[in-house]
Amino acid sequence: MAAGQVMVVGGTHGNERNAPWLLEAWRQHPGLLHRHGLALELVLGNPAAHAAGRRYLDQDLNRSFVPALLEAPGPGDRELQRARQLLALHGPEGSAPCLVALDLHSTTAAMGNGLVVYGRRPADLALAAGMQQRLGLPIYLHEQDRAQTGYLVERWPCGLVVEVGPVPQGVIQSTICRQSQLALEAALEVLAEARAGALRQPARLVVHRHQGSLDLPRHGDGSPAAVVHPQRQGRDWRPIGAGEPLFLTAEGTTIPFHPSGDQVEEPVWAVFINEAAYGEKGIALSLTRREVWPVAPAWGQALTDLARNLQRPG
Amino acid sequence: MAAGQVMVVGGTHGNERNAPWLLEAWRQHPGLLHRHGLALELVLGNPAAHAAGRRYLDQDLNRSFVPALLEAPGPGDRELQRARQLLALHGPEGSAPCLVALDLHSTTAAMGNGLVVYGRRPADLALAAGMQQRLGLPIYLHEQDRAQTGYLVERWPCGLVVEVGPVPQGVIQSTICRQSQLALEAALEVLAEARAGALRQPARLVVHRHQGSLDLPRHGDGSPAAVVHPQRQGRDWRPIGAGEPLFLTAEGTTIPFHPSGDQVEEPVWAVFINEAAYGEKGIALSLTRREVWPVAPAWGQALTDLARNLQRPG
Repeated sequence: MAAGQVMVVGGTHGNERNAPWLLEAWRQHPGLLHRHGLALELVLGNPAAHAAGRRYLDQDLNRSFVPALLEAPGPGDRELQRARQLLALHGPEGSAPCLVALDLHSTTAAMGNGLVVYGRRPADLALAAGMQQRLGLPIYLHEQDRAQTGYLVERWPCGLVVEVGPVPQGVIQSTICRQSQLALEAALEVLAEARAGALRQPARLVVHRHQGSLDLPRHGDGSPAAVVHPQRQGRDWRPIGAGEPLFLTAEGTTIPFHPSGDQVEEPVWAVFINEAAYGEKGIALSLTRREVWPVAPAWGQALTDLARNLQRPG
Repeated sequence: MAAGQVMVVGGTHGNERNAPWLLEAWRQHPGLLHRHGLALELVLGNPAAHAAGRRYLDQDLNRSFVPALLEAPGPGDRELQRARQLLALHGPEGSAPCLVALDLHSTTAAMGNGLVVYGRRPADLALAAGMQQRLGLPIYLHEQDRAQTGYLVERWPCGLVVEVGPVPQGVIQSTICRQSQLALEAALEVLAEARAGALRQPARLVVHRHQGSLDLPRHGDGSPAAVVHPQRQGRDWRPIGAGEPLFLTAEGTTIPFHPSGDQVEEPVWAVFINEAAYGEKGIALSLTRREVWPVAPAWGQALTDLARNLQRPG
């Protein structure tokens, strides 16, 4: 593997303003960010959507990194063009290559300071485990969801999403920025340790593994027939049991949670409850299972092999 | 004055979703709203912006009700067309005339359940005083701000804004809906009492009177040089004293509040702190003075004279 930098992305969604604010601050005052001796590429994910103050212009950039789309003929829409440009610039084979992608997001859901990991790539799991060891961050393991694919970080050899909330779209809040920076610095510390061949892994990794998503009940014309129940709003990363309040209709009728299939056996935990941008995706919340995994030495080896090629500042 | 209804508006801003959700619920289930015997016109303020999920398409509809704009030749932009249409339909001289406009908004600022009154029209003050008497709602009296004009409710003989938050743009939260409905029902109760000639006014009205607005410190290129200080975020309706933290720069420097002019004498109180939509207006927060006014009998008389012409459901 050729040498490369760590790519730090903010503003993949143009109405998430906290990470772009940080990127600009770190550009102007490099000393504000503890880089742990690593060369960083600071990248505004979707500059056109950022300028417009909208999540995206044509389609969600963070669903545009689908190999079949990226390789399709024709120019594609503006987000697909940006996805290709990011890979050409900072993909592992790009002109200024990066080996790791850390994508800083915010959410209107009460997710606190958390991580999203896509699938089970060993280096990703080692990085997430190291961050959890340092800051206790909860981890949403997103996998086996055919309706939601094409995430940016999947196209880099290692990468994950930092997701901080609740914060409204279009708003910069100092505490959200602080949480984002803490998560990023923890990631860089883990990567630097791996680069030095001195990664100390925790014994266990706690993940919330994606099981599926629930949409709001809807009328025939697609309009919502209920909203998230006030007793469920803001209760991300918590279990939801059969019969507990889930939605509330306009008439004031509570719709309880009905587990489906094997969800009856074990409790499920809710995440991304009432995220503003997921309404159009038909997601009112997602359901996960909380699992405690032993940390495999092979994960750390994978991250160490990769991190060995990370560049120091030039 | 000819007879008319009470106009209840939601979705004047297309990304504020709570009031439109309520309007739809009340249309489908009229019994959900206690109307206090008054005929209501339920109006989606900006349907095109609502469909697009954006605050507005061309310009802010709630700054478009400027007489000079409304009377200007030419078709105007889409919001100006909608403003004229609303007046043609439901203005006091419209085809389905309304005498009172109650405009239901939400905000990303921590305003709780509050009212905005524009200027000092006696009927508006009587209505606001009655609502404050019932629910204790704080009142932002907006006046003498030449940079912000053209509010919808100003073009009806009586009207005010209900402003509930914090809630992100694009999100429906049950508690926000509940607060909005409580405020609306209090307004209808006051109007019904006035219509019956039985208005009981409180002795005093507490207002937070607009003094001016502060923008974020900015770089030469217009980008923010600081954000709202974490000790100020969420502290709407509270006093801010000289030297107290106001903004925080990227480098971590606290910028304290410096009162200007006669603000040194008396404390000022902050409202609309970090409202997402006000960034483009150059408003990071607004400053008010808290004042306790005796309630004038003439206010109640003005509201009674007007409410006498309110129609009952047909």
